[in-house]
Amino acid sequence: MDKKIYLDHAATTKISDDVLESMMPYLKERFGNPSSIYDMGADNNSALQNARQQIANVLSCAPESIFFTSGGTESDNWAVKGSAELQKSRGRHIITSRLEHHAILHTCEYLEEKGYEVTYLDVDELGIVKLDQLERALRPDTILVSVMSANNEIGTLQPIRQIGRMLKGHPAFFHTDAVQAFGQIPIYPEEWGIDLLSASSHKFHGPKGCGFLYVKKNLALPSFLHGGRQESGRRAGTENVAAIVGMGKAAELAGKNMNRNLHHIVGLRDHMIHRIEKEIPYTHLNGSRNHRLPGNVNISFLDTDGETLVLMMDIEGVCCSSGSACTSGQASPSHVLESIGLEPEISKGALRFTLGSDTTREEIDYTVDHLKDIVKSVRSMAKE
Amino acid sequence: MDKKIYLDHAATTKISDDVLESMMPYLKERFGNPSSIYDMGADNNSALQNARQQIANVLSCAPESIFFTSGGTESDNWAVKGSAELQKSRGRHIITSRLEHHAILHTCEYLEEKGYEVTYLDVDELGIVKLDQLERALRPDTILVSVMSANNEIGTLQPIRQIGRMLKGHPAFFHTDAVQAFGQIPIYPEEWGIDLLSASSHKFHGPKGCGFLYVKKNLALPSFLHGGRQESGRRAGTENVAAIVGMGKAAELAGKNMNRNLHHIVGLRDHMIHRIEKEIPYTHLNGSRNHRLPGNVNISFLDTDGETLVLMMDIEGVCCSSGSACTSGQASPSHVLESIGLEPEISKGALRFTLGSDTTREEIDYTVDHLKDIVKSVRSMAKE
Repeated sequence: MDKKIYLDHAATTKISDDVLESMMPYLKERFGNPSSIYDMGADNNSALQNARQQIANVLSCAPESIFFTSGGTESDNWAVKGSAELQKSRGRHIITSRLEHHAILHTCEYLEEKGYEVTYLDVDELGIVKLDQLERALRPDTILVSVMSANNEIGTLQPIRQIGRMLKGHPAFFHTDAVQAFGQIPIYPEEWGIDLLSASSHKFHGPKGCGFLYVKKNLALPSFLHGGRQESGRRAGTENVAAIVGMGKAAELAGKNMNRNLHHIVGLRDHMIHRIEKEIPYTHLNGSRNHRLPGNVNISFLDTDGETLVLMMDIEGVCCSSGSACTSGQASPSHVLESIGLEPEISKGALRFTLGSDTTREEIDYTVDHLKDIVKSVRSMAKE
Repeated sequence: MDKKIYLDHAATTKISDDVLESMMPYLKERFGNPSSIYDMGADNNSALQNARQQIANVLSCAPESIFFTSGGTESDNWAVKGSAELQKSRGRHIITSRLEHHAILHTCEYLEEKGYEVTYLDVDELGIVKLDQLERALRPDTILVSVMSANNEIGTLQPIRQIGRMLKGHPAFFHTDAVQAFGQIPIYPEEWGIDLLSASSHKFHGPKGCGFLYVKKNLALPSFLHGGRQESGRRAGTENVAAIVGMGKAAELAGKNMNRNLHHIVGLRDHMIHRIEKEIPYTHLNGSRNHRLPGNVNISFLDTDGETLVLMMDIEGVCCSSGSACTSGQASPSHVLESIGLEPEISKGALRFTLGSDTTREEIDYTVDHLKDIVKSVRSMAKE
């Protein structure tokens, strides 16, 4: 292959051409500050409102519920810390799961140091949170339940609708980190009882450094960034106009093409899993076979090492990942693979491929062909 | 004039052509996540390090002291809240000034609700903080002194070096909000005893949604955004690679051209002030005549209204501001103009022009010519 085969869409995605085109005027002549009252600035306000509407359309929610942030991490920090602060007089108990992203887990640890109590829900061997455990964990002083929509490493989808239903009538806020899910699978926060939802632009072919937090109407989440009166006084800082416009366009495209992409990507994913399981011995599919993000393939190869496989695949022109991108370089096994009870010798050889809408069957076949050889040679090296 | 005359560089600036050019590869094919271990991702790490070095060169500091953020507001929030958290067992007293940006003032108010005590230093009629008052306000339990390098509205430069000297030997951290100053005037945090310094890319011809915080070596400022291990584990979130590369390039250009720009802009500024004071009666220069940002012209026109002047200047193709962009739309008089003791009838007619390196003498003359007529007509309308 002449060009790289990019199978790491869970780490980041390429800005799509239409998205970049929508951003360019705001990186050039339309550079005004939306807070200014002259036309060149104030006009950019309508661009922000348009992006807000484009995102709201995908979630079927009110545009006033969308607040722009600098990305998924800020959205997660804001949702969790803001919920804790707003309700601290009512309670200090938070429920989350063991396989959340570090943006949630480390924020929860930070709150534990501040005197909050956090229950970490276990997940089953497919990575699905245990609903009966959640039900038992709920207390009158529980202020927040935060469970991700889909996991970044193993792609497991969580029973978000059921959690929303379970929390009906309970005063705890329900937050979902939808960084991996938004734009890929349908989510309807208003209908599903979700109070707060985080997303990140660069995971759905928008630019990096931009994201949003959905906040349910009338939920008075306090500011996380204090300063100017942007975002209805809820999130200070000059708006990242170009990136927000790009994120809006990317959301629109993701929404418009969701069904087509879903069908296409799921087909390729299942083809890839099928070929690997058939043609390479001693493999183990991590996560659920059915409750799984469309593009996620996470498979362990016994007697190999994920990082070595990644580097050897890179030589063949294929970009993939051995864990979540945020923790690669870390020697310890991924907390996600640990949470589903994988033995170290299995988690060690885990490889993650995440497919996108541009991925082709030819790319998948090329990847599996080379993966076969690489796994074989790594295993034979290990035996020497 | 066919095109707009942009005299609002304190609100935001246009991304310069060279900066945008440096960003484009990272908005296109070089989209990898720097945390990934394959080349397409990991290579972007060197782009981040290059930007860090470009900024460090301008400040004459170690590149390890530069931490990328989403902008000046995040940098300010991080510096102030992080300092408060780190030292809360040592003390809870903070000193700042009355004319800081809202990103500092509202963050301080937030901390006051949390039990911190804040002393707001007065400023003289030119907007300069009173050093003797600062000296008297310092206490053993003072943990932070935050004074901006230059004011966003009236352009007054603060005696940052003297404050640095005064704090030598005192355990309080010294933070300066250099959002308006960085890249325009020389600042040397290591030499001047500055512990923390905030800056924002879009104020010096870099992209919006990006900034940095300088943190003195060995100052263990706790994280503000929790999550992944980016930025040496101090600031989580996938790096905004394209924007960071652009900010680095913009810093390099600002540093390289600082002397030339300073000379050019100060010349135009003084020419503008001179013409306005000579040709328009009943004006008042707000701020200091000498201790002033190169590009700042803030003048009150008696018996007028700033917002009306801004809108009428806009019709003539000139972009300027009546207050800080973050608070325009607010009916109450600017806290900055209040802090220097301006009577409401004078602050009401304040107009801010902020010049940039591309500003020409022709543009200034055109602006003053039209301003003369507009002030005259607004005054005659007011008399009717």
